[in-house]
Amino acid sequence: MNMSIRFTGSGGQGAIFAGIVLAKTAVLYEERHATQKDGKFAIQTQSYGPEVRGSVSKSDVKISDEKIYYPYVDIPDILVVMSEQAYKKYSNEISKDTIVLIDKDLVKSKPRTAYYKIPANRIAKELHKEVVANVVMIGAICGITQIISKEVIERAILDNVPKGSEDMNRTALQKGYEVARKLKGSK
Amino acid sequence: MNMSIRFTGSGGQGAIFAGIVLAKTAVLYEERHATQKDGKFAIQTQSYGPEVRGSVSKSDVKISDEKIYYPYVDIPDILVVMSEQAYKKYSNEISKDTIVLIDKDLVKSKPRTAYYKIPANRIAKELHKEVVANVVMIGAICGITQIISKEVIERAILDNVPKGSEDMNRTALQKGYEVARKLKGSK
Repeated sequence: MNMSIRFTGSGGQGAIFAGIVLAKTAVLYEERHATQKDGKFAIQTQSYGPEVRGSVSKSDVKISDEKIYYPYVDIPDILVVMSEQAYKKYSNEISKDTIVLIDKDLVKSKPRTAYYKIPANRIAKELHKEVVANVVMIGAICGITQIISKEVIERAILDNVPKGSEDMNRTALQKGYEVARKLKGSK
Repeated sequence: MNMSIRFTGSGGQGAIFAGIVLAKTAVLYEERHATQKDGKFAIQTQSYGPEVRGSVSKSDVKISDEKIYYPYVDIPDILVVMSEQAYKKYSNEISKDTIVLIDKDLVKSKPRTAYYKIPANRIAKELHKEVVANVVMIGAICGITQIISKEVIERAILDNVPKGSEDMNRTALQKGYEVARKLKGSK
């Protein structure tokens, strides 16, 4: 098992938080079975080079059954794009197998591979808290792929958000999950 | 130039934020000179393995003049320890040259190498916001080492904290800086 996820977005959209929670979840919250000797390894990185300017942020996560020696993500298995700026910057770093999730309203471009349009920003606005758009996207990842169960990630998110915001985050996760299940069913 | 910094602390102390801001600062806010062809590279990682349990968090930063291929920090140049739990977990991973900064009140153990006792938590409490203890520690790093200038890091911090908390963060940084300058002067 070897999986990489890249979250990209503009400043304030919580791409980094999303990556941290996913990485933590993979390792810390997963139920261990009696037969399972070792757990998973995960690494979450932000890397910056001289070319990095502007307000686009990128957060990479690698999850593996084995210790991770090369932590960079060159071509992600899953790419989440939360703004048009982020799309311009990172949409080329995909393969034909990359699953792409874009924000339905904020990304106008069309990926050249299979993609899902998730109204993450819209759902977050309806909850009067745009900052949870990243949690909607995490819910959508759970709905589309099997990398992590919704129950497990919910626990991790609720442990890592400010007190008082638990209900909103739970709703954001659930709505992202449902939207994605429907989209997946219609494909 | 090749420098690694490790922030360790307990949940909620902002070790991860501290690492992210330092990494970003090194690359994004540094003034470029006309003679300087390339900027710096930085990577900030959280890595989790099966052995990671409990609420201690660790945030590693590497800063270099060249692209970073091995992003892990084995022995940091600077180790920041914000809680006794974090001390127990990470204090052995140092060399005789590692500069250690510990929280004056929250860490009771004594490092075996040169170290500085920074009253980060106490200063943060006086500002009625314990969450800025990490910013005090960043100020202290600036006061002790030359890896990054206080002016540059101040700009980065103020760009990355919630609106309305700028003054408190500026004060936290300044106080950490001053405490560290005094400690350094007395050595």
